[in-house]
Amino acid sequence: MAADEQVTLLDTWASSIGMRVRIALAEKGVKYEFIEQDLWNKSGLLLQMNPVHKKIPVLVHNGKPVCESLVIVQYIDEVWKDKAPLLPSDPYQRAQSRFWADFIYEHGRTIMTTKVEDQEAAGKKDFIDTLKLMEGELGDKPYFGGETLGYVDVALLPYCCWFYTYEKILNFSLEADCPKLNAYCKRCLQKESVSKSLEDPKKIYDFALKLRKKLGVE
Amino acid sequence: MAADEQVTLLDTWASSIGMRVRIALAEKGVKYEFIEQDLWNKSGLLLQMNPVHKKIPVLVHNGKPVCESLVIVQYIDEVWKDKAPLLPSDPYQRAQSRFWADFIYEHGRTIMTTKVEDQEAAGKKDFIDTLKLMEGELGDKPYFGGETLGYVDVALLPYCCWFYTYEKILNFSLEADCPKLNAYCKRCLQKESVSKSLEDPKKIYDFALKLRKKLGVE
Repeated sequence: MAADEQVTLLDTWASSIGMRVRIALAEKGVKYEFIEQDLWNKSGLLLQMNPVHKKIPVLVHNGKPVCESLVIVQYIDEVWKDKAPLLPSDPYQRAQSRFWADFIYEHGRTIMTTKVEDQEAAGKKDFIDTLKLMEGELGDKPYFGGETLGYVDVALLPYCCWFYTYEKILNFSLEADCPKLNAYCKRCLQKESVSKSLEDPKKIYDFALKLRKKLGVE
Repeated sequence: MAADEQVTLLDTWASSIGMRVRIALAEKGVKYEFIEQDLWNKSGLLLQMNPVHKKIPVLVHNGKPVCESLVIVQYIDEVWKDKAPLLPSDPYQRAQSRFWADFIYEHGRTIMTTKVEDQEAAGKKDFIDTLKLMEGELGDKPYFGGETLGYVDVALLPYCCWFYTYEKILNFSLEADCPKLNAYCKRCLQKESVSKSLEDPKKIYDFALKLRKKLGVE
């Protein structure tokens, strides 16, 4: 990494989509300044750097903003391309990686705003079916990326610290329902790039309860 | 294009997301077989090629399926890379292109399933604001991609043949409200890769009326 590079991440500690960017930066060994954002009182910097969506995460690289978690991860992979490639080089494998990362993105963003009573009915089954589908896609590989951590892993791994919250809210067990996915999370958490980028699941759970109360989706 | 390449597109004629793929293939000069799909009676081939979403468009290249319109367009750009590059080569410009294409994707998929009475209120203003935002991003460039047609253009241009429908349903005028975007559409339709990939706006309007009736969003 060049000494004169300035990398800043506008993010909020509990954000699963922000954690994607943190894992990608950690994998690449990129040093950066983390600027915690208050989503209930958005900073002038955030509004200036992401005027369209006004959302975290935003990566500011040498003064220029990049927005949207998966766009940022692909940017990181292209700029710091000499270390820990995230997307494969083969176009077909790249397309498959993008398909699954988008799939995770779509499913990830719905759960937090679904009411518990809805989740207990169709929502819970859909959620577990989605996890089982991901488990099938993982198969017996160590990572979704194959032998090394890749783009799909970066999209999914933040949920390792959110699964405890989902287990509590939806009343299910990742270990019992999706043993391979559970083992995958444990295995990946042994990587420093992952563990240092995620947060304590119990702290996340406390945060989620407060957030759901605030959003009126208890 | 190698003589032994087999390229098939599972699509339905009026689909704006399918038209993205058609424009990209036309820009690259790739010959392909178009297999019209009945979305009310999905074919075994579609279910086999896109078992996760069961949706068009699907590009089948030498027997292997690629799903999701923007994933397919990026795949096409990477496989047939020697002609008409769609994404720029600079990582920051690539990230900006991905941001805007995703933005169009998000906004494009909501309009068809919104009821007219909702669209007449907040929906209409949001829609026109979105178009104005895109117009600002276009600025005085001939294309969103700069001097040549690029990834963002491919994402947006299918709406050229859908705008007549939106004008009728939302009761607005693209020419009056967004003159630069209107001029952009007219300019791009002079390109054969665009015009031959799009459909007659009045045929689209008839289709949209029938579809909205079927979906109960008249």
